[in-house]
Amino acid sequence: MKQAVVLLSGGLDSATALYWARSRGFRAIALSVRYGQRHARELVAAREVARTAGAQLIPLRLSIPWLKASSLVDSGKPLPEVPAKSIGRGAIPSTYVPGRNTIFLALAVSLADTIGAEAVVVGANSQDYSGYPDCRPEFNRAFERAARMGTRRGAEGRKISVLAPLQRLDKAAIVRLALRLRVPLELTWSCYRGGKRPCGLCDSCQLRARGFAAAGLPDPAIKRR
Amino acid sequence: MKQAVVLLSGGLDSATALYWARSRGFRAIALSVRYGQRHARELVAAREVARTAGAQLIPLRLSIPWLKASSLVDSGKPLPEVPAKSIGRGAIPSTYVPGRNTIFLALAVSLADTIGAEAVVVGANSQDYSGYPDCRPEFNRAFERAARMGTRRGAEGRKISVLAPLQRLDKAAIVRLALRLRVPLELTWSCYRGGKRPCGLCDSCQLRARGFAAAGLPDPAIKRR
Repeated sequence: MKQAVVLLSGGLDSATALYWARSRGFRAIALSVRYGQRHARELVAAREVARTAGAQLIPLRLSIPWLKASSLVDSGKPLPEVPAKSIGRGAIPSTYVPGRNTIFLALAVSLADTIGAEAVVVGANSQDYSGYPDCRPEFNRAFERAARMGTRRGAEGRKISVLAPLQRLDKAAIVRLALRLRVPLELTWSCYRGGKRPCGLCDSCQLRARGFAAAGLPDPAIKRR
Repeated sequence: MKQAVVLLSGGLDSATALYWARSRGFRAIALSVRYGQRHARELVAAREVARTAGAQLIPLRLSIPWLKASSLVDSGKPLPEVPAKSIGRGAIPSTYVPGRNTIFLALAVSLADTIGAEAVVVGANSQDYSGYPDCRPEFNRAFERAARMGTRRGAEGRKISVLAPLQRLDKAAIVRLALRLRVPLELTWSCYRGGKRPCGLCDSCQLRARGFAAAGLPDPAIKRR
């Protein structure tokens, strides 16, 4: 059975990417990374989503001191709470974690090369890549090329792909795809803050809310209140 | 002053890369990674080399369970002790750590993007890249492209380079360059095994010994016995 390593943060996008991989016939191995983000709530979500999907989850913990430069890691920095309509236009937000997806993809490629998986799957999408350079399709393509050059699989002429199935989708389209794939959306966590409930104010909450609204659906993670 | 992040394992090659960066006018920040390799002896060497060079050293510690697939990590696996002349021809050795340099370069690029360094420097060279896919010039070039796509620096049109100054050199040429640059060779550690003295038997010891012999010089790390 063909295998894929799926980067699973526990949010809407990566959970959908995991279910997409399953639907394409991959045996999925999920990889979650605690890299010092403000809270571990999303990693609890990753565990629950992986369990529900019947996928093995490998949780990694990295201690990388300089990532404190990001407001997603340093809780002393304010999180952006911009009006939703301006999200994803122009400047790189303070929540950018330098090189984070590069590190995540490198870890996923390393695991893929170890277990003989032919693909690495990432939930990067069109709403991310307007702000985060390491979510852009050009980046994923360039990284795939590096992965082919730098692995045993690649050197032996076997396939190793970086797949970003949500790449061209906005949040509403992702919500619709998630419903089609029966993703357990009530288990996912997108909020940049920890806490018992999503804050509803951060970039990520607002993007998610817009997605559900545009898809004409209630967010089951909110309904659980 | 322009800055470079140098991947420093504590061996001959990376120490030479560090001194090369200094000689090119970079303020060098060294990054060493403990990823579960058999011994920490090389990390002691990294610390001593960085101190002698007057470079800041950032030591990272990663716990990545699947790297046990490599004989460089799993001390239950035998280390190759092939005749020196067959080293670097053909198959990928058991000391290959899947995706290791991809992970290291990703970490270095992340640090570079955080501190505003314009280069990442790696000691990969022609003797490595005949065996390790992630030491090949094509890989370094492909990774550089990904780094330009995936970082804030790159997205803002600023320079970010992956430099492998030893890329075209064999061990003898590296030894000669190291002497020209006044690298403290007596502090470096290349042996795959720990212990008080280099084993003299592993691939890495044999390659190093061949390099010094071809350069017509004694190895000061061995003389210290």
